[in-house]
Amino acid sequence: MTAWPHLRGIAYGGDYNPEQWPPETWLEDARLMQEAGVTVVSVGIFSWALLEPEPGRFELDWLAGVMDLLHEHGIAVDLATGTASPPPWLSHQHPELLPVRADGARLWPGGRQAWCPSSPVFRERATSLATTMAERFANHPALVMWHVSNELGGHNAHCYCDVSAASFRGWLQRRYGDLGALNDAWGTAFWSQHYSAWEEILPPRIAPTFPNPTQQLDFARFSSDELLDHFRAERDVLHRLSPGVPVTTNFMVMKHVRDMDYFAWGPEQDLVSNDHYLDASDPRGHVELAFSADLTRGVAGGQPWFLMEHSPSAVNWQPRNLAKAPGQLRRNSLQHVAHGADAVCFFQWRASRAGAEKYHSGLVPHAGTDTKVWREVVELGRTLEAIGEVAGSMSRADVAMLVDWSARWAAELDSHPTVDLAYLDQPHALYGALWDAGIAVDMVHADADLSGYRLVLTPTLYLTTDATAASIASYVEHGGHVLVTYWSGIVDENDHVRLGGYPGAFRELLGVRTEEFFPLRPSERVHLDDGSTADQWTELLRLEGAQAVASYVDGPLVGVPAITRHAFGEGTAWYVATRLDADATSRLMSRLATEAGVAPVVKTVPGVEVTRRHGAAASYLFVLNHTDGVVHVPAEGVDLVTGAGVRGKITLEAGDIAVIREGGG
Amino acid sequence: MTAWPHLRGIAYGGDYNPEQWPPETWLEDARLMQEAGVTVVSVGIFSWALLEPEPGRFELDWLAGVMDLLHEHGIAVDLATGTASPPPWLSHQHPELLPVRADGARLWPGGRQAWCPSSPVFRERATSLATTMAERFANHPALVMWHVSNELGGHNAHCYCDVSAASFRGWLQRRYGDLGALNDAWGTAFWSQHYSAWEEILPPRIAPTFPNPTQQLDFARFSSDELLDHFRAERDVLHRLSPGVPVTTNFMVMKHVRDMDYFAWGPEQDLVSNDHYLDASDPRGHVELAFSADLTRGVAGGQPWFLMEHSPSAVNWQPRNLAKAPGQLRRNSLQHVAHGADAVCFFQWRASRAGAEKYHSGLVPHAGTDTKVWREVVELGRTLEAIGEVAGSMSRADVAMLVDWSARWAAELDSHPTVDLAYLDQPHALYGALWDAGIAVDMVHADADLSGYRLVLTPTLYLTTDATAASIASYVEHGGHVLVTYWSGIVDENDHVRLGGYPGAFRELLGVRTEEFFPLRPSERVHLDDGSTADQWTELLRLEGAQAVASYVDGPLVGVPAITRHAFGEGTAWYVATRLDADATSRLMSRLATEAGVAPVVKTVPGVEVTRRHGAAASYLFVLNHTDGVVHVPAEGVDLVTGAGVRGKITLEAGDIAVIREGGG
Amino acid sequence: MTAWPHLRGIAYGGDYNPEQWPPETWLEDARLMQEAGVTVVSVGIFSWALLEPEPGRFELDWLAGVMDLLHEHGIAVDLATGTASPPPWLSHQHPELLPVRADGARLWPGGRQAWCPSSPVFRERATSLATTMAERFANHPALVMWHVSNELGGHNAHCYCDVSAASFRGWLQRRYGDLGALNDAWGTAFWSQHYSAWEEILPPRIAPTFPNPTQQLDFARFSSDELLDHFRAERDVLHRLSPGVPVTTNFMVMKHVRDMDYFAWGPEQDLVSNDHYLDASDPRGHVELAFSADLTRGVAGGQPWFLMEHSPSAVNWQPRNLAKAPGQLRRNSLQHVAHGADAVCFFQWRASRAGAEKYHSGLVPHAGTDTKVWREVVELGRTLEAIGEVAGSMSRADVAMLVDWSARWAAELDSHPTVDLAYLDQPHALYGALWDAGIAVDMVHADADLSGYRLVLTPTLYLTTDATAASIASYVEHGGHVLVTYWSGIVDENDHVRLGGYPGAFRELLGVRTEEFFPLRPSERVHLDDGSTADQWTELLRLEGAQAVASYVDGPLVGVPAITRHAFGEGTAWYVATRLDADATSRLMSRLATEAGVAPVVKTVPGVEVTRRHGAAASYLFVLNHTDGVVHVPAEGVDLVTGAGVRGKITLEAGDIAVIREGGG
Repeated sequence: MTAWPHLRGIAYGGDYNPEQWPPETWLEDARLMQEAGVTVVSVGIFSWALLEPEPGRFELDWLAGVMDLLHEHGIAVDLATGTASPPPWLSHQHPELLPVRADGARLWPGGRQAWCPSSPVFRERATSLATTMAERFANHPALVMWHVSNELGGHNAHCYCDVSAASFRGWLQRRYGDLGALNDAWGTAFWSQHYSAWEEILPPRIAPTFPNPTQQLDFARFSSDELLDHFRAERDVLHRLSPGVPVTTNFMVMKHVRDMDYFAWGPEQDLVSNDHYLDASDPRGHVELAFSADLTRGVAGGQPWFLMEHSPSAVNWQPRNLAKAPGQLRRNSLQHVAHGADAVCFFQWRASRAGAEKYHSGLVPHAGTDTKVWREVVELGRTLEAIGEVAGSMSRADVAMLVDWSARWAAELDSHPTVDLAYLDQPHALYGALWDAGIAVDMVHADADLSGYRLVLTPTLYLTTDATAASIASYVEHGGHVLVTYWSGIVDENDHVRLGGYPGAFRELLGVRTEEFFPLRPSERVHLDDGSTADQWTELLRLEGAQAVASYVDGPLVGVPAITRHAFGEGTAWYVATRLDADATSRLMSRLATEAGVAPVVKTVPGVEVTRRHGAAASYLFVLNHTDGVVHVPAEGVDLVTGAGVRGKITLEAGDIAVIREGGG
Repeated sequence: MTAWPHLRGIAYGGDYNPEQWPPETWLEDARLMQEAGVTVVSVGIFSWALLEPEPGRFELDWLAGVMDLLHEHGIAVDLATGTASPPPWLSHQHPELLPVRADGARLWPGGRQAWCPSSPVFRERATSLATTMAERFANHPALVMWHVSNELGGHNAHCYCDVSAASFRGWLQRRYGDLGALNDAWGTAFWSQHYSAWEEILPPRIAPTFPNPTQQLDFARFSSDELLDHFRAERDVLHRLSPGVPVTTNFMVMKHVRDMDYFAWGPEQDLVSNDHYLDASDPRGHVELAFSADLTRGVAGGQPWFLMEHSPSAVNWQPRNLAKAPGQLRRNSLQHVAHGADAVCFFQWRASRAGAEKYHSGLVPHAGTDTKVWREVVELGRTLEAIGEVAGSMSRADVAMLVDWSARWAAELDSHPTVDLAYLDQPHALYGALWDAGIAVDMVHADADLSGYRLVLTPTLYLTTDATAASIASYVEHGGHVLVTYWSGIVDENDHVRLGGYPGAFRELLGVRTEEFFPLRPSERVHLDDGSTADQWTELLRLEGAQAVASYVDGPLVGVPAITRHAFGEGTAWYVATRLDADATSRLMSRLATEAGVAPVVKTVPGVEVTRRHGAAASYLFVLNHTDGVVHVPAEGVDLVTGAGVRGKITLEAGDIAVIREGGG
Repeated sequence: MTAWPHLRGIAYGGDYNPEQWPPETWLEDARLMQEAGVTVVSVGIFSWALLEPEPGRFELDWLAGVMDLLHEHGIAVDLATGTASPPPWLSHQHPELLPVRADGARLWPGGRQAWCPSSPVFRERATSLATTMAERFANHPALVMWHVSNELGGHNAHCYCDVSAASFRGWLQRRYGDLGALNDAWGTAFWSQHYSAWEEILPPRIAPTFPNPTQQLDFARFSSDELLDHFRAERDVLHRLSPGVPVTTNFMVMKHVRDMDYFAWGPEQDLVSNDHYLDASDPRGHVELAFSADLTRGVAGGQPWFLMEHSPSAVNWQPRNLAKAPGQLRRNSLQHVAHGADAVCFFQWRASRAGAEKYHSGLVPHAGTDTKVWREVVELGRTLEAIGEVAGSMSRADVAMLVDWSARWAAELDSHPTVDLAYLDQPHALYGALWDAGIAVDMVHADADLSGYRLVLTPTLYLTTDATAASIASYVEHGGHVLVTYWSGIVDENDHVRLGGYPGAFRELLGVRTEEFFPLRPSERVHLDDGSTADQWTELLRLEGAQAVASYVDGPLVGVPAITRHAFGEGTAWYVATRLDADATSRLMSRLATEAGVAPVVKTVPGVEVTRRHGAAASYLFVLNHTDGVVHVPAEGVDLVTGAGVRGKITLEAGDIAVIREGGG
């Protein structure tokens, strides 16, 4: 993952779907793109039905014309393989490639992405189209990168059909080798589930009650791998026929998407690209944006990444699609750059007239260019142009947060102590506290090398392998600081409980032993002797070497420690056995940061975000004012947007941003 | 639609299901009907399984006996074709005629109406039964009208089976002619949905995500047409074999029924009949009754209509089926007459002992005739007898409200700016404000001739054709007053957004241009500078000729106009771009009424409803006291119920009603 | 039902699933069982897939080894037939035995109990395994009882497949003899449902609207009978091959389980056994425990019964699985004994490492034996040992509560006056009031002999047969006291309304006639003239011989009686026509108890439960302190747990229990 398309500065653009418009609009589009400073557009994503209107008959000339026109106007093309959604004729000929739900209901065409990830027919037709596209366009001068499919797994991550079942069995055979190993891993001695032949194994279709948890977990893993395999098949075609042109597929690293293990997908990309949409109902949406952007950076191995899609204003698929406030389009965009994006692209160039996404905002709104949105689009183009030199710079934090998709899938299975356990809850809580404190975080895989970090956060790592546990213990032993939160270290990679007391994988490291979980009632709240409150979760915990930092003063476990600290080797291991309120979380993170010697990027006021990117020749300070007031932030250097010098501090209006090349003084 | 059955005065009766009772009860029924003053009953609606107990073997003698008995007692018969619900043997022989849900699940017998509207087998068997019924009973002396099927589309409006799919394709071929036109109309350039052959097209079955909106809209249109086609098939049999006897099918014009475009159905009826049930959870249920009765009147082209069903007291199918309060049975009945009904019928004559509707109230309750309900039934008979001369009289209002089923279906599709958009919300809000003010309203189709009206209301006309837009503009140009509410004029008949700014179809008329929708959060409320509050919806609106009447003082759009007024031609066009609270709506409607020169029927106190019907020889004032207190209402003439003269005013007890032949003074 | 396994004192143990653990654990298990005082374990319940890993090939040696080991350690075995859940190979070979939902979706393996109760293939394979088990183990010295299947009907009570449909038709033919009788019973004259051939009849699969209620009711009866038939088939094998060894299947008498008519099942058992789990969200869970334990005792005909499963601490299948507080394990256990259990067993011996129930607590927790749970397990063993002499003693109350599963099923069908009607609501309300007052209750079938009781409660006996109505009337005529609550006596055994006024079956007995039901709005509350409040339900009731005890002062029925009292023969019949609040219910029950001459077991303070069991030689007082404080309870005799004499009173710490052999003074 080291290739970057030939694009200057911070790339700027969006999805462009010219087939939805008459050709006379195309020229206007190209001219408006120039006006806005657009440098790259993604073309052809949903064009299969027009590119191949009948099986084997391709009509590519119109697309070539579009690419020619774009090239003439200096706009580069991120060209899709066009395979995101099959044309109606394909599922009409092969209804068996339509996906099937766990309850056996088949999903039909009419929307998009109606294909079974395991279908050999779909695979063959998709790679055939990718081949045709590569053969025709590999040498087109506008082409700078390839865009495989689109948001793989967005709607069809899990298919339960018989074809998928057979593929799942193949995956299991490769994973376990022999059936005995599978029976062990799945714990089939329970509930008379022992398999006597591979043919008996099925996806976790609806059952009279809770299906086998390891079956569910492996099906989640299989489903992610199956889609990744599809990506690889298309990518390999492109690498063969269009060598040197980087290939990506747009990820969906955001809170509500959980089905793809992007840490496995990242290394397969020439560059990592991501789509991110704000949850309009979340008043802290900008913190979720930062979290997701940092996680995308982590998935990209710390390299710059490509923001393939976000929205100019409202989307269409949430219950209430709030429009963006004035200035928010630019602030959201710059926030992604502040967290490592070297491209700012949108869905989509021109808002559709028809179809399911017609109320998704576009860079060119229904109301045309005499609009708030268009004026902000043009302004953003100028801003990105002005800060172009930050491209290629990188970030590095003293704090690492461990993330793992298998842990996420396993942590949220059914039949757990409480339905309130949500994997992302504690990662977001800890990240939010650090964000408030201005402290940068690297999001890394649970098995990452931790040696360079001052502080490692291990929230809700429910599933922990022996290797991960050993890596964290070794890190602490050599002087590291770690924080583990509840519902971590409970099971191994097969979702088998680690016996002897919770949290099994971390018991020795943390110097505690939990006998029993004591989840709380929905509205129940407990108090700690340090004044904190907590809810949802408590544990009957005994100290086995650790010290109690705070204990319950009420609830079912009066006097039992809730927060512990354990000197381990040359380092320190903290455990939080309950869900602390936001203030208590902040206090705890501050204490940990102080102990570990972690400092904020810049000391500033709440709601003002500051990040730093380091380039070969200079470092860049990104300052984003998320507040409703004017703020002053210490800084020194040159404001790249205004060109003005910054001496000691920069003043930002409500909602404004600045990018400062640091230096001087 | 000009025929009326040979029935004197206001017809009175209900559904009569003698097959549920032993013959000895039939005689008692006839005598009780006489006691109550019943003039007509609907017979045979759900009798198919008894009329044709085996394929082709008919047993009609029992029904002839019932009709003879009724005739002997002076009770006329509205005879059903008996096709409402197929007998078990039919779906046993032809399971392919059972309806199929969007998720592929088949619906089975056990309830009622388990038939696919597109099934040729069902069509053949139903028309065969209708033929047999007409042949046997066309000349029966009790027969005064025919009742085709029952509440067509109540449970089976949408079927997604393969037979329906084929019929849908036929409908589309007739609508679009060639496939290119369909591809354009459906916007299939989006999401790779281009069709290359008719055979590829399907109903909007469940899909991985939002199906094509125009596909959904056309399927709604098709489904309404398909059921109407069934009606026509039965009707044509009856017209042929029983000439001169009017034919109807009972509509369901009430708030929660949305699947049939009754403006298209109305002209196909010899007379319009309707079923109406109060929503027991709605404290303003009587206003909804008035709305629905006026809409039924509109569907009937202003002609008198037949109230085929309402309930004596509680129903059985709502979550909580509240009984009617004393006097409510009569007040509800007279309210329908006040809004144009010339018949007051009920479901059903005698409350069932068994089956799913046994807790639906009947004119003869389970507890027999020594009951509140029976005494009110007898009293109602006397009342209707006393006011018989109003039959045939008609109403006319100065205010028209435009209604359109395509707009309703389109307005409520998925993937819209907010899930809070409900088509009937603003029609009910505006109607309710006028009802409170005592102002009469005609509910007319969006393409109706508006020339006779002083004020035209255009609430939530999301889908607006060019013709409709031109008709409204022309009306205003020639001096009319119009009010348009938000989410109107947005799309054309194919659900394509009208570009250039919202509300596209009305932008010029209203003198405004909206750049972006700003829906609000669930509990969010904004204030206007005239003291109003509003919720759910706001718009980034610019004045282009209109004047701001009120603007936001808080929320996301401070200073932006929310209510505008535009002089256009010789008339005035108002726009309301937000969801006003009830008080603000009332103030606005009062101002509009004043400007347009619209007056209440009679000036009275809140909760007292007054309507006027005009006959050939006299006019009639209906006064309904919906309040808990005694009220005095200005009136002059003769109280038809009591026979007393009315001089200057009439005094009504709480819940009481009066019908006054106007005159004298 | 008179056999009891050869086990001394109060049996103690739990489900033991050695196949989930390596053999080296088995010896540790046996030793720990000894340490805890365990006397019996249930083995093999979910072992089918290991006992018969391929069709017809059995591997029983491992199980024999386990039984040998247990026997060597003095642990008796309750041996399962192993048929609870079929192995994957069985449904792989015969997918037609997988159950099918009402919507046609098939349920797949992966969980447990994926079998159609009507499947002849499953029946054959299950009885084949039972035969093999009996042949091998009938004479094993550890064997003391047989455990057929497990929680029959827990997940698969209703199957709607074609095989079930055929079996349902057979059941209906046996019930009704000829089709005319079924048509009458089902009221098929309604909605054109008349059947002309048996083949047309289906289970109540999803339909376009409410399916026939009697069809639904009969399907509920059939489904219970079908599972019972399965039990009988396995039992008969065991009786033949293992004579003299008692056979049981574990019932699930608890609030949320409704599908099996255990009054029909009880007489088919050699001894009644039951599983009971607390609802962690219910603050009065201990009262529900008492209710369910008394109902189990009733189902067992008053004989001692076997508590087959309850939980040491948390379960895994509720939304929030709260752990038990210190002491609760023992208090819950003794409460079952206080209500007639002669065995205290748990699910399960050792908490699983894997599978869907791994977070269900075990007697040996994940954390091992240095735990709260294990210490309480050992203490419980000592307690049960100490009170062993109570085994075989029995209870008898002066108050009977009538319970009927057909009434429950019918009362909760759709299309009723209000969705708020829940069958168990009033039984629990009346029981709770008596529990608070310390008054013992026998739960008996609606047709039980009532002659020995002072007071009979008839809550929500919606479906009442003529025989039941006559039995209750005769009881009152001869001097009995009865209380009937609303929604009783409404329909006959076919769910046909009893005409002439409600509550039809009890109108004469109660001296009232209800014309109409007036259910209330969700948050509506009415007041009575005795200061009570009530909600959900009121009735337009007329006195026909009864006296009004309390009447409404507000709501829809001001002045109408809500509570009535009727002298009937030599006795008294009370009617409560509304849902009283808890205080009013308590006052009413106190008045009734006083009038009927019913006294508490012992007069004590709220939250302290006292029951008495009578043995051949002595009586035993069980005292359970459910409060958070110290209490003093009048008693005389010997405390069996401590061995201390009790003189005049016993003092119990918060949460503590005592069992006193009464005597002395």
